[in-house]
Amino acid sequence: MQFTSEQRFDDGVLEREFTLGEIPGILWTPGSASAPAPLILVGHPGGLRNMYPRLAARARHAAAEGYAAATIELPGSGDRPRSSAAEEARADLRRAVQAGEPVADEIVDRLVLPLVDQAVPEWQAALDALLSLPEIGGPVGYSGGVISIGVRLAVVEPRISAALLFAGSFVPRSMFEEARQVTIPLQVLLQWDDEGNDRQMALDLFDAFGSKEKTLHANMGGHTGVPAFEGDDGNRFFARHLK
Amino acid sequence: MQFTSEQRFDDGVLEREFTLGEIPGILWTPGSASAPAPLILVGHPGGLRNMYPRLAARARHAAAEGYAAATIELPGSGDRPRSSAAEEARADLRRAVQAGEPVADEIVDRLVLPLVDQAVPEWQAALDALLSLPEIGGPVGYSGGVISIGVRLAVVEPRISAALLFAGSFVPRSMFEEARQVTIPLQVLLQWDDEGNDRQMALDLFDAFGSKEKTLHANMGGHTGVPAFEGDDGNRFFARHLK
Repeated sequence: MQFTSEQRFDDGVLEREFTLGEIPGILWTPGSASAPAPLILVGHPGGLRNMYPRLAARARHAAAEGYAAATIELPGSGDRPRSSAAEEARADLRRAVQAGEPVADEIVDRLVLPLVDQAVPEWQAALDALLSLPEIGGPVGYSGGVISIGVRLAVVEPRISAALLFAGSFVPRSMFEEARQVTIPLQVLLQWDDEGNDRQMALDLFDAFGSKEKTLHANMGGHTGVPAFEGDDGNRFFARHLK
Repeated sequence: MQFTSEQRFDDGVLEREFTLGEIPGILWTPGSASAPAPLILVGHPGGLRNMYPRLAARARHAAAEGYAAATIELPGSGDRPRSSAAEEARADLRRAVQAGEPVADEIVDRLVLPLVDQAVPEWQAALDALLSLPEIGGPVGYSGGVISIGVRLAVVEPRISAALLFAGSFVPRSMFEEARQVTIPLQVLLQWDDEGNDRQMALDLFDAFGSKEKTLHANMGGHTGVPAFEGDDGNRFFARHLK
């Protein structure tokens, strides 16, 4: 893990860009911390540069409450090499959605499963590197992004203690089996009127999670319209489970 | 409205029992208030005496945040005269549920519609009396209880600015039409694993509400297992809309 740039904001939060091998990432740490900070992994749909304003807002909101926050670029997004198979699957999905057709399971599988298979070990490697920093202690939460990545991480990564998931993307059928194996506390955000998302699939996925503590928050406002108060609710969810 | 008893708790909250004609009720007001307090009407399934511990906890939690809180007995519950038609409908419903049969719409109609028709004007009369007290100012929120009463109140009572509804009881089909007329901000609680409640009906009702701001919070824990953190979330919902 190599830091490549840093800036400190007025609120004291330190933002550092880094690379982990070929993977770019960003780390935000609170301005003042008496003890190693708990960590929130900030998920996203891919494309750090485009997502930066929203990611930085979420991370600095968390840092204000004493959390470190970090994110890495997804495989095939941003400046990382494209996968022609993923691009093809994405085009097939877009065609189906635009034609108003149901999206075939095999398209979702081709798009999401290789992404999850590649991304999850990368987030785990990032976790290794981040937890070796003296200013970061854990426990660790995962927040947002491609929900299938969050589900797989919740199953395979014992260092993640709680996850705030955003039910806003297509989910392969096989992820439902993995969802049943999740036991950590979950808060799941669903945009009720998200036209690009399958609401019933999101409700079925929430139902499938094996966690004894799971909460669904559904709101209006479309895919990108998650209300601002959910940011506070997310911090309180992590405060219950990471502090 | 006649006050019949009062006690002050260690936290300064003043609890007063009252009668409004034949209807018993309870009013809680904050220990210290510089201005007339906003009011939360505290709904319940009927039976003030049995419900008292939970009602008082909710009301004092709200009073700690500066709200007045009040409740009245429902028609046919507690010490109020029973309706033989309602008792019969309740027995029919219990029989159907115990036999594992679907509950016929006409049973739900017989049980709930007369209750709503009678209760709603009573809550409105209580509101008249409560808002005439110098220590209560408004705005007014409605919280919990029989969801059909909350829906009807949200439609017909313009003094109610926001409602926190508990989707935990059978809803007559005709209430869906009323739900579409609701426009005030809503937060709807659903116990996901509530075996005595129809989850799909609750989701359909949430979908039907006409409000632009509506939030669904679904949790595990069975009918009576609403997590304690939802009390804080409820206060924050009212803080956004009543202050």
